[in-house]
Amino acid sequence: MRDIFDAELHQLGEDLAAMSGRVEQAITNAGIALLTADLALAESVIADDLAIDAIERDLDERCVLLLAQQQPVATDLRIVVSALRMSASLERMGDLARHIAQVARGRYPRHAVPQALSGTFAEMHDAAVRVARRTTTLLNSREIQLAESIEQDDDLLDELHEDTFAALLGGSWAGTTQETVDVTLLGRYYERFGDHGVSVARRVTYLVTGVGRPELDRTAG
Amino acid sequence: MRDIFDAELHQLGEDLAAMSGRVEQAITNAGIALLTADLALAESVIADDLAIDAIERDLDERCVLLLAQQQPVATDLRIVVSALRMSASLERMGDLARHIAQVARGRYPRHAVPQALSGTFAEMHDAAVRVARRTTTLLNSREIQLAESIEQDDDLLDELHEDTFAALLGGSWAGTTQETVDVTLLGRYYERFGDHGVSVARRVTYLVTGVGRPELDRTAG
Repeated sequence: MRDIFDAELHQLGEDLAAMSGRVEQAITNAGIALLTADLALAESVIADDLAIDAIERDLDERCVLLLAQQQPVATDLRIVVSALRMSASLERMGDLARHIAQVARGRYPRHAVPQALSGTFAEMHDAAVRVARRTTTLLNSREIQLAESIEQDDDLLDELHEDTFAALLGGSWAGTTQETVDVTLLGRYYERFGDHGVSVARRVTYLVTGVGRPELDRTAG
Repeated sequence: MRDIFDAELHQLGEDLAAMSGRVEQAITNAGIALLTADLALAESVIADDLAIDAIERDLDERCVLLLAQQQPVATDLRIVVSALRMSASLERMGDLARHIAQVARGRYPRHAVPQALSGTFAEMHDAAVRVARRTTTLLNSREIQLAESIEQDDDLLDELHEDTFAALLGGSWAGTTQETVDVTLLGRYYERFGDHGVSVARRVTYLVTGVGRPELDRTAG
């Protein structure tokens, strides 16, 4: 029994990492679609989000089965409950990538992000892609020092989010109302993406070290 | 053992309902603070959100303890896992009420919502309060016909959210950029509040009837 359970726990970890890999692909493509007004790429992100949702449902069902059949306690139980939480965070990250792609699609053939803010959103894109890539690596490797760089990129995303408000409200903003709406929503999507990455990183850290209160992170957004 | 476990499950249900009652109070006060520019009320919502977060942590810890100590299977297991999910949804609903209160506080002594949209946001407020109140009643009573009216109010919130975009982008919008930003974010907060209410309602329905795929709801936002 124990061997089977270990194999199942291991598989759970691999599946979370694979799910995170898909989120990484989604946020990468969503940002490129946004910054280059690439309709086909935006549509692929929107379509692929269904696969991320399906992975979440599958993972969740297996977690509940594991709880029922293996009756884990202590660390094993913590791993399974954490997997339930992390799959929910990764699913939301997929949704947020899809929302970004939907804004790109909605404005095509125009660019959703006005020229004046393209540098800020390029930086947000880079930070979000790093968050996703490091989350994948963290889930694969459990190198918990990655958690710190995820937190730093989340802080950067918060700062860039503030920068978008400063640009909108600073007095020299000359964008249309549509651009104001899009910048407001896109900034929020990127900011939330970082929050969820931090949530996953803190859960992995907690599993590995037993230190930290992963629940605290959700107050952020 | 069974009696103790039943008592603990019952307590879990009562605590979720009590948590929902606090969310109901939060969204009620947040909306009044928003619509009447009431600074003290906004600040009370912001402060009280810490209590909702604390209830979530407490509920989650007890769910994990129940899983470890009682090793539930079948329906009992489903109840505990659902409680974990529902507490997360209710916690997010509390966050969203706090965000609404923060917008109200940030614009004080002005009204965050411009006159042209005060009717729309008054309707959103009413719908969100009904969602929260019925969620509380549903958790207390398990009268699953309430789930349908929660879904209807969520649909109404989606429509009103669309109305805000129509007002912003319809050509006759004369608001400031700050007002555009605030309306965009407030509309999103109310829309997400409805989604989470539906999520809780579907989980209760699933627990009572065994029908439905509660996971599907999260693709909404």
